[in-house]
Amino acid sequence: MGKQSYAIIGSGALGGLYGGMLARSGFEVHFLLHSDFDHVVENGLRVESPLGDFHLSGVNAHRSVETIPSCDVTIVGLKTTRNGLLKDLLPRPTRDGGVVLVLQNGLDIESDSVAVVGPDRVLGGCCFLCSNKVGPGHIRHLDYGRIVFGEYGIVVDEVTPRASRIADEMVSAGIDAQPTENLLLARWRKLMWNIPFNGLSVVLDAPTDQLVEDRDAVKLVEEIICEVHSAAHACGVDVPDEMIDKTIEVTRSMVPYDSSMRLDYLNRRPMEIEAIFGNPIRAAEAQGASMPRVEMLYRELKFLDARNVD
Amino acid sequence: MGKQSYAIIGSGALGGLYGGMLARSGFEVHFLLHSDFDHVVENGLRVESPLGDFHLSGVNAHRSVETIPSCDVTIVGLKTTRNGLLKDLLPRPTRDGGVVLVLQNGLDIESDSVAVVGPDRVLGGCCFLCSNKVGPGHIRHLDYGRIVFGEYGIVVDEVTPRASRIADEMVSAGIDAQPTENLLLARWRKLMWNIPFNGLSVVLDAPTDQLVEDRDAVKLVEEIICEVHSAAHACGVDVPDEMIDKTIEVTRSMVPYDSSMRLDYLNRRPMEIEAIFGNPIRAAEAQGASMPRVEMLYRELKFLDARNVD
Repeated sequence: MGKQSYAIIGSGALGGLYGGMLARSGFEVHFLLHSDFDHVVENGLRVESPLGDFHLSGVNAHRSVETIPSCDVTIVGLKTTRNGLLKDLLPRPTRDGGVVLVLQNGLDIESDSVAVVGPDRVLGGCCFLCSNKVGPGHIRHLDYGRIVFGEYGIVVDEVTPRASRIADEMVSAGIDAQPTENLLLARWRKLMWNIPFNGLSVVLDAPTDQLVEDRDAVKLVEEIICEVHSAAHACGVDVPDEMIDKTIEVTRSMVPYDSSMRLDYLNRRPMEIEAIFGNPIRAAEAQGASMPRVEMLYRELKFLDARNVD
Repeated sequence: MGKQSYAIIGSGALGGLYGGMLARSGFEVHFLLHSDFDHVVENGLRVESPLGDFHLSGVNAHRSVETIPSCDVTIVGLKTTRNGLLKDLLPRPTRDGGVVLVLQNGLDIESDSVAVVGPDRVLGGCCFLCSNKVGPGHIRHLDYGRIVFGEYGIVVDEVTPRASRIADEMVSAGIDAQPTENLLLARWRKLMWNIPFNGLSVVLDAPTDQLVEDRDAVKLVEEIICEVHSAAHACGVDVPDEMIDKTIEVTRSMVPYDSSMRLDYLNRRPMEIEAIFGNPIRAAEAQGASMPRVEMLYRELKFLDARNVD
């Protein structure tokens, strides 16, 4: 079985890193680029990582999906705030029978890709990753890096062959890829980090290390994590209890980090509020569960976002 | 019955305005001043107000309480964050049998004055007032101005003679003073404004008009007001239900206003977090009532305060 080809839609902190690692290992990888296109054509892609720095020249860079050949796997690394673009971006690079792997933050954010390519061709994944794009074609991977991914919308008995195959290829490229039978579990587990730390880092204008060092902030983080944990349970997803404490411990031992939402806010880009807050709140509400602190954070963020984006 | 004499401890936006109005009407008023002392001695006190601007020369200005003669009424207009000073500031200007009128924000903040002069000599009051000190000896009164005040720690059958007398004198000086049999009711009613608007104006970095104009912020304001209203009920204080909507309506028709807490925050002064948030939260908790959104705001403010104050 030959190597699969990959199209990277959204070549930022996440798409640039994982796509770069796949390309370095000899996979055919096509990158869709906008503002960085000229720079990457001329200078290639530069990745700094605790796993080893590398530089890729001769990158398959594309300014438009029109020039991307049909690929086996299309990785969506765009911000969810740009999901309106997917109807134009997904059909061309995704070959008949190929799959879309949605590596976006939040809950139920795969539905936008499903609307374009159909329900049977979408996998979703969560990245437990500290990585930033620090300049054109320049990714700085700081810490962690696991991708947990699986079939969207169903819990399966065992990992499907197509998920296994992607995982194997990623692992061969040095990526900590972990296929799962239960994507929703991974999604809610990730939300237990994203909701408190993305939200509070914006509202309190603080990187993660300041939040876990302060008594009041860490108490808030805890209360919010518990709300998310209970909401997951109401939605039929049982995240192990020990993940409550572990989520904070992991952040304590993390490098000081600006969450993606904080970076978006500081750079006056729209924040992924509906994906990370709105969708989980609505999913919980549909099951009769409420998350008062999460809802408060949601409204605070919407107020700040409305004033922040030009 | 002659006119009473007044000592003003804390001659800022509030003490400067009300003390100034009393002095203008011929009452003997002594002002304790710190940084503004020299300016006021030289230039007097300047008040801009929709009720009429005025300028007072020949102000009884004092740099220390040592030079203030014994007065009938000592008005405390300090920030509650400085209540540690009261043990040195109250005994001297308050004559035997004189009373202390505590015009501070928050709940149970009279207890610090009670600890100095005893339980029978303390009145408390809430000011429904938009006023700022805009320069040395320069007060800008913007809107509203009612003082509701009464005996501390007890609900009385009717307004006490000493409260009546102060009210009559204040009214004669043009102040909208309203004595009450139930100070706690006034305190909780004021908290229904102070808790949402002081808190959110700091966390969301916005003046009051921006909060009531935004759909998400005003929803948050509403939810928080309802929490405070329920907590008051749990504490045996029944604020009429219509005050929930009225609190927002009043703010809509208010001039755009920076709450005192926002001004403190912007000027890197400690915020009155325990008076306005901590004490009401603890009072509610003691009655088995919880205010999750208020507690969240409390923790957010404590985090911001700890980073803000030098």
